[in-house]
Amino acid sequence: MKLFFSSASPYVRKCTVFALELGLADRIETLPSKVSPVLRDASVVQANPLGKVPTLIIEDGVALFDSRVICEYLNAEGGGTLFPAADHPQRFAILAQQALADGILDAALLARYETTRPEGTQWDAWVAGQMEKIKSGLDWVEAHADTFYDRVDVGTISFGCALGYLDFRFADYGWRNKYPKSAAWFEAFSARPSMQATVPHV
Amino acid sequence: MKLFFSSASPYVRKCTVFALELGLADRIETLPSKVSPVLRDASVVQANPLGKVPTLIIEDGVALFDSRVICEYLNAEGGGTLFPAADHPQRFAILAQQALADGILDAALLARYETTRPEGTQWDAWVAGQMEKIKSGLDWVEAHADTFYDRVDVGTISFGCALGYLDFRFADYGWRNKYPKSAAWFEAFSARPSMQATVPHV
Repeated sequence: MKLFFSSASPYVRKCTVFALELGLADRIETLPSKVSPVLRDASVVQANPLGKVPTLIIEDGVALFDSRVICEYLNAEGGGTLFPAADHPQRFAILAQQALADGILDAALLARYETTRPEGTQWDAWVAGQMEKIKSGLDWVEAHADTFYDRVDVGTISFGCALGYLDFRFADYGWRNKYPKSAAWFEAFSARPSMQATVPHV
Repeated sequence: MKLFFSSASPYVRKCTVFALELGLADRIETLPSKVSPVLRDASVVQANPLGKVPTLIIEDGVALFDSRVICEYLNAEGGGTLFPAADHPQRFAILAQQALADGILDAALLARYETTRPEGTQWDAWVAGQMEKIKSGLDWVEAHADTFYDRVDVGTISFGCALGYLDFRFADYGWRNKYPKSAAWFEAFSARPSMQATVPHV
């Protein structure tokens, strides 16, 4: 398998954490990528019309994306239990937790992209709307973080990658001060080798 | 079940098409919503911290989102085959088709939101980047539309909702002229009662 990679992308991180947890990392070759919302990487576009990372090319040449599809594929390929089974009573609640974590990340990425716009084209209300989503999302995480211990699944991995991204790109936001239960859980979860090996960097 | 609804949202449409195809529509009560990237709807936020539609409240009070999670839940609840089974050889390729259609929609929504920004804060390169994603996505659809006939699944339903959204919000884009095979398939697919009943409107 070949994975279009970026060390700064939280969605790539989700996939890499999955690969490490499932013992599949040595079967994945990483390919460099240079993608942004306004600049396309032709090599990625050739595999994924959206031109986004992560994109995983599997053995038969099929390209899989986005991170949710890749993570579920890796879980199946590795015979894992990181996705709850079809008859798991919490299956859809846990999938919605992944959606919440991804939604926090979508909002964080849009807020960050806003800062890269030319001077004069930034719009405070847009950033405020995204930061409100992040705040409400973190409020939910804080109310539930006590239940995350001992859970290693698509929900907790997604939350871990979301909180790690806030550390990486929104250090001034100081989420740990406002959300102590989340911070305590994240500290414990971050000790996993899969998380240690994937700390985001430029 | 209760669904926070918007007649203009292509992601709500996916869920409603699923409900109709699966014979579940009469078990779903729709709730009004007023959401935008900069204005939050408190009643939606209470169920879904992201404040987005669709959000589905299921019998035990759990809130499911986003559209992918809701569609998969409805498919399971209705005993449907709109999601390929775990052992389906094309399962992940079809899930990636949903991701492609959702990515076309994400780009279209971001391009549209750009037009709602205050004068002077619009950035042409941002819109161009989103429109490139739409173009590459439609190129892929055009190359594969001949294989969509007789397929009613999460991939084709997602493509149908994406093309329907372009008709609704990007009528001037004229995608039918550039993509005749896609247009022919869409015309056939749009005849389904589930698609007829969910044509987007303000």
